[in-house]
Amino acid sequence: MPDIGIVGAGIAGLHLGLMLRQHDVPVTLYTDRVPGSLAAGRLPATVAHHAPTLERERRLGVGFWPAEEYGYTCHHHHVGGPRPLVFRGDFTRPSCAVDHRLYLPALAEAFQERGGRLRVTPVAAGDLDALAGRHDLLVVATGRGGLADLFPPRDGGASPRRPLRRLCAGLYHGVAPSEPKGVTLSIAPGRGELIEIPLFSRDGHVTALLFESVPGGGADHLADLDHEEDPGAFRRAVLAELTAHHPTVSERIDPGRFRLTGPLDLVRTAIVPTVRADHARLPSGRLALALGDAHAVVDPIVGQGANTASHAAEAVAATIVEDLAFDELFARRVARRREEVVLGAARWSDLMLRPPPEHLRSLLGAMSRHRPLADAFTDNFGHPDRQWQALATPERTRAFLARHGAADAPAARPDGTWGPTP
Amino acid sequence: MPDIGIVGAGIAGLHLGLMLRQHDVPVTLYTDRVPGSLAAGRLPATVAHHAPTLERERRLGVGFWPAEEYGYTCHHHHVGGPRPLVFRGDFTRPSCAVDHRLYLPALAEAFQERGGRLRVTPVAAGDLDALAGRHDLLVVATGRGGLADLFPPRDGGASPRRPLRRLCAGLYHGVAPSEPKGVTLSIAPGRGELIEIPLFSRDGHVTALLFESVPGGGADHLADLDHEEDPGAFRRAVLAELTAHHPTVSERIDPGRFRLTGPLDLVRTAIVPTVRADHARLPSGRLALALGDAHAVVDPIVGQGANTASHAAEAVAATIVEDLAFDELFARRVARRREEVVLGAARWSDLMLRPPPEHLRSLLGAMSRHRPLADAFTDNFGHPDRQWQALATPERTRAFLARHGAADAPAARPDGTWGPTP
Repeated sequence: MPDIGIVGAGIAGLHLGLMLRQHDVPVTLYTDRVPGSLAAGRLPATVAHHAPTLERERRLGVGFWPAEEYGYTCHHHHVGGPRPLVFRGDFTRPSCAVDHRLYLPALAEAFQERGGRLRVTPVAAGDLDALAGRHDLLVVATGRGGLADLFPPRDGGASPRRPLRRLCAGLYHGVAPSEPKGVTLSIAPGRGELIEIPLFSRDGHVTALLFESVPGGGADHLADLDHEEDPGAFRRAVLAELTAHHPTVSERIDPGRFRLTGPLDLVRTAIVPTVRADHARLPSGRLALALGDAHAVVDPIVGQGANTASHAAEAVAATIVEDLAFDELFARRVARRREEVVLGAARWSDLMLRPPPEHLRSLLGAMSRHRPLADAFTDNFGHPDRQWQALATPERTRAFLARHGAADAPAARPDGTWGPTP
Repeated sequence: MPDIGIVGAGIAGLHLGLMLRQHDVPVTLYTDRVPGSLAAGRLPATVAHHAPTLERERRLGVGFWPAEEYGYTCHHHHVGGPRPLVFRGDFTRPSCAVDHRLYLPALAEAFQERGGRLRVTPVAAGDLDALAGRHDLLVVATGRGGLADLFPPRDGGASPRRPLRRLCAGLYHGVAPSEPKGVTLSIAPGRGELIEIPLFSRDGHVTALLFESVPGGGADHLADLDHEEDPGAFRRAVLAELTAHHPTVSERIDPGRFRLTGPLDLVRTAIVPTVRADHARLPSGRLALALGDAHAVVDPIVGQGANTASHAAEAVAATIVEDLAFDELFARRVARRREEVVLGAARWSDLMLRPPPEHLRSLLGAMSRHRPLADAFTDNFGHPDRQWQALATPERTRAFLARHGAADAPAARPDGTWGPTP
């Protein structure tokens, strides 16, 4: 039985650790933070888990927040412009968002209860080789502390080299859930997107608002506002942005109750999307495998980071359990198993950050008039490989429309706005 | 529904065609020979179908020769030298060998009965672009007529560039089946191998003898002998070779009955192993996909050609049915699905043609003393990806031994012959 070391106790490292423990593989998880301490810290992100991830959690015995009770069943869309598009798409099976400050400590506890070793210690890049020497395989499953730099970027120009959005994500009281309960994807063309997520936190059922602001697009100020300095000004700015650009969310807001759930329940950041090499050689010649944020970082615009990390963890776990050695052949097998989902998620996310090509605008217009198409697009949030298959080229999007009975969708508007030609 | 054209009516093309017909995909198969005419022609090869291929045939409704009646259950091994190794390995599920002059016409008939179109017409490389224009995708599934040259070799030096064996394969009367009924793999180190296969032909249950002669190794003359010129001399030479080097086969021969089943039941050839690009662009820009011999040709030393072609056909069929377009993304998806089996078969076959490295000699020695190991090696004839995982490096072979409870196997003999150190 091999002995596995994992650096990083996010969803990638924890899912991998729990999966390996199901096969009685000895696992040590290295993290720089006591998992329980996350609860008192800053919001790390606003993360939706889609059905395939929830199914993996059930199989791992860590489905602590059943989607039937904590989840949601659909995406509501609003595409702004002179003739806004408003439409819904349903999942086949519900998704669920739980504050990772609850989620990650619960999984770390389950990991330890099942015989996993957890070591709280800072790990720097220079420590990796010594750590690798204690195990048969070292998996780097965190982008923190510069550890990802071990793995060279590989996505040869497909990803942007700078952030295409500035992010402002927070948890709020005072937003009534949509009906049926779902995520709202609200697009303000040229300005950015708002992703509203019904999320379960220590305050119960609250609302995550993730503003994705195009640099220079007019909503940048949200990423610059200092909530701690002037909570009132912050609240007013957010309300003003919602009222002006995201009406299907603002109409559900009770201004008297609307506020951040706490001063730490806000995170402002920006992502440089990067796909890195699957593995690297340490100075000793030992192999280190990249997983999760060490392997691929995506902008959260379509919520693919955690789901892709969990999928990739399963690919790594299955290959560890089956294979006979941890060498180039092993790394190639892992790469083959996860590549389609990882690259699908990365390329789809990148596409959504760019000025939308005509076939994407046509698709949105067609979805607004053809429910089965919107349902298929929504369900593909759990299958980024399939979503990319439908979005990679205009020809593919046409075939996707045809497959879902929407072949007669007109082309995008000639003025370049979203939706169908009148 | 896409319309698919397939050039080549061997096992690759026929399996793909039958799989697509199960999904009602329109298919046209182009072949230069009326399938029924094969029956009167020369033996094309001696082909064993392993359990995964037989399972695919059952699912396709073309399991016309059930392995329970026509098949065999094990491999008998003889490794010659000063201390010969003699041992057996059992399959989990039986394999089966049927003369492809019976098999291919039967499948072609089933293909047509199920709505597949079969066009008998010579196809040259210059015709491919026009053919591709008649279909949504053209699959080249034959190495005949130089069509494989469309796909550049890709296996960067891993395969030899010249034949490492000269082959002489024939069907014979007068060899009693082994007990239990099985293939015999008889290795005459430095000289070559004999693969004896219980095979069902138009003459009923006969015996295929496939001599794999190392050029200059002493058994070359078998590939040069002209049976038609002097059947008696041919028969004497084969008998002499068997008696001198393949005793576990020769002991089952009735010299009074031993003879070729017919003048056309003999084929002499030599293979240059080649793995080619998965796809190519035709002059018009249309994509052509390589399958079967157009994609990968292996020496038959471990009987992987037909099984790999059938596996790859399933990868192509599944991707055609699922995907939305036939472009680079499609080709990459096909490549990912079949790569591990195709490359595993190619690299394992190549390894068996070379002077055996120490870890392969150790493995054979350990198999001779440890039945579960021999069983696992034998069962892997149906899983060349797994076999290559066990053979790719000395470390992997050691882990394979350990996994099957044979970790204490001694190293190979210092004199370089096969088997364990005394």
